[in-house]
Amino acid sequence: EAEGGETAGEVSEGSGRYNTLQVDQVDGVYKITLNRPNKKNAITLEMYEELCEALNEAAKDKDTVLACVTGAGDYYCSGNDLGNFANIPPEGITAMAEKAGEILLKFVGTFIEFPKPLIGLINGPAVGVSVTILGLFDVVYASDRATFHTPFSALGQSPEGCSSYTFPKMMGLAKASEMLLLNKKITAVEACERSLVTAVFPEDSFHKVTEQRVKAYAKLPRKSMQKSKCLIRDGERDLLHKVNKAECDLLVELWQGDECMNAIMQFFSSKSSKL
Amino acid sequence: EAEGGETAGEVSEGSGRYNTLQVDQVDGVYKITLNRPNKKNAITLEMYEELCEALNEAAKDKDTVLACVTGAGDYYCSGNDLGNFANIPPEGITAMAEKAGEILLKFVGTFIEFPKPLIGLINGPAVGVSVTILGLFDVVYASDRATFHTPFSALGQSPEGCSSYTFPKMMGLAKASEMLLLNKKITAVEACERSLVTAVFPEDSFHKVTEQRVKAYAKLPRKSMQKSKCLIRDGERDLLHKVNKAECDLLVELWQGDECMNAIMQFFSSKSSKL
Amino acid sequence: EAEGGETAGEVSEGSGRYNTLQVDQVDGVYKITLNRPNKKNAITLEMYEELCEALNEAAKDKDTVLACVTGAGDYYCSGNDLGNFANIPPEGITAMAEKAGEILLKFVGTFIEFPKPLIGLINGPAVGVSVTILGLFDVVYASDRATFHTPFSALGQSPEGCSSYTFPKMMGLAKASEMLLLNKKITAVEACERSLVTAVFPEDSFHKVTEQRVKAYAKLPRKSMQKSKCLIRDGERDLLHKVNKAECDLLVELWQGDECMNAIMQFFSSKSSKL
Repeated sequence: EAEGGETAGEVSEGSGRYNTLQVDQVDGVYKITLNRPNKKNAITLEMYEELCEALNEAAKDKDTVLACVTGAGDYYCSGNDLGNFANIPPEGITAMAEKAGEILLKFVGTFIEFPKPLIGLINGPAVGVSVTILGLFDVVYASDRATFHTPFSALGQSPEGCSSYTFPKMMGLAKASEMLLLNKKITAVEACERSLVTAVFPEDSFHKVTEQRVKAYAKLPRKSMQKSKCLIRDGERDLLHKVNKAECDLLVELWQGDECMNAIMQFFSSKSSKL
Repeated sequence: EAEGGETAGEVSEGSGRYNTLQVDQVDGVYKITLNRPNKKNAITLEMYEELCEALNEAAKDKDTVLACVTGAGDYYCSGNDLGNFANIPPEGITAMAEKAGEILLKFVGTFIEFPKPLIGLINGPAVGVSVTILGLFDVVYASDRATFHTPFSALGQSPEGCSSYTFPKMMGLAKASEMLLLNKKITAVEACERSLVTAVFPEDSFHKVTEQRVKAYAKLPRKSMQKSKCLIRDGERDLLHKVNKAECDLLVELWQGDECMNAIMQFFSSKSSKL
Repeated sequence: EAEGGETAGEVSEGSGRYNTLQVDQVDGVYKITLNRPNKKNAITLEMYEELCEALNEAAKDKDTVLACVTGAGDYYCSGNDLGNFANIPPEGITAMAEKAGEILLKFVGTFIEFPKPLIGLINGPAVGVSVTILGLFDVVYASDRATFHTPFSALGQSPEGCSSYTFPKMMGLAKASEMLLLNKKITAVEACERSLVTAVFPEDSFHKVTEQRVKAYAKLPRKSMQKSKCLIRDGERDLLHKVNKAECDLLVELWQGDECMNAIMQFFSSKSSKL
């Protein structure tokens, strides 16, 4: 298995604890691998919860210097699993939307609060919330096979992950709106030009080069790195939580509307017509 | 006439209502064309008023999904018509400056409040306020013939259109100051690198490609798009109005000063010497 | 001497007043040259004080339209002179750290408040605080020989010069963190792509081209330029002072910690081992 290649160093006993993730703790690096490759690592409600748990563990663990997130298989992550909306519960659609909003609020809030360097290793296509949340990572390395797509309005939805704030800040409104309002899909190189990505590496060396870098970073003076990260973030932490809340509130509203329902129904019917 | 080529779809009766603009409403797109081509679409006091009216109409019109702005002829817009300052009224120069400041405040405020996607189609050179205001557009497409020039200090004036805030935010202080303080003129490609422009198209396909895109965008779920735009903007709306006010106040002061008077007089004398 | 080549115009009598700087006032340009070339222009406590004095003089001097900063010799500036930490005074390390924090607070505060256009002429490698402070300059021109390096975490330290705010704002978090947390060294061209630098010039024409530009800028309407700069800065002045204070407070803490002590001791021992 490609992602589990680390054998040197001390590996914690916790690795097999998650259903949707693979977690490895080696030499100060807490590595989270989204691990539903046959579903393109789409994020189920369980995966949202497990990602929060894993990040909280990485935050508290005294041997963890930094954390990184990557995807198993060809995809990095295909975003929110639309199956999360497939079964309307007996409590009704409003209850379902509100529950989903709470989960998202907590999920994004966990990234806002994460106190150690967080590195994204984008091994392939990234969609939706897996893209927007990158604005809360410290460093993002991408394979040249990666793409970045946030088709919110096509799905009758709206931006989350604080991207309504972080994207215009990092790439300017004119390029952020093209992605967030008009569903523009971009390449890894374009994402680097737009400052969403720190650097792009050829697919065949991506795993090796980024692994080496992450290992080297984990040997830097950790207190200095962690305190520097918090210094950078403290100034906008409150604002980010406010943005997160506003984004979740709007999504709870839109999830209950016609545009979203129609888009999701169309998605499932086009999927089943392919069978 | 190139800009009036749309014939399909439903066209509202309002098109001939403006003196300085051509307005077309087709298939959800509210298209505003600055229409003083023999004056390079310089913005007269009347055009400021008409642009506010047209934008307010587009905002309210239930059939309008999005709006776009372009220029008739070779220029996009040569900026504020200096003829606006040519005749000092009997009330004196202070009254004239204050009146101009009020008009500008209202004009920029209308862009800050515009609630639907707003797309700039920059068909040729853009100067002054027609450049700065682009920081309040959602998407900006430019012909490779377009240039962007904000020669404020050369004219003894100062930045407006919220550019004192939006330009450093989108392109960094080092590049914003070069434009806003030191009169640097940039190409369409440079404007794209600086995030002022979303994308650049060759002149000969510009009209066709952007028309197709705008049409397609107008078919996207409109509620999702409009609410997403407002979400992105809500966080800085109050700040933008504050910036707008500070910019207008400074301009009212500078318009009455020697540097501006001398620069404008020199402009007119160099113009008449060419006759 | 290359930097002192200006002979035309009126030169003030003050030029020889500084021990660590060369200062020239010619035709509205107040030019500050960091002048410890045999120490790569490392900033001693005296140089911090003299830079504040020189900037305050440039701010008040009625003949000064704008100021620029460059370095004598091959380096622009190698950053904080680690010799500042070489001798722990009798009052102890806490007193030393607090004193250094006060000097830095005042130094950065002087740049925040500087009311006239400030242009960086980066003639060679730049390190540490000489890089971070560039986020407070209006325009930065770099020789293609220049590099930009902020190895804070390698030295057990943390970002200053308001870079914890200005760097993420100008280049996005993903690229700022690579520099500020992970010690990434970048070229002049990369610094330009990241908006830290306005433009890059070939080494052999750098001095001549930038000198001509600066001269031309000093002839622009000065009131318009200076008021425009203040307009751009007023909105975030208070925030910048708050950021500066938070950065200095963290540094005072880290300077007293093991990571920093070890890093500095290692620096000196590797230096002496080369003798």
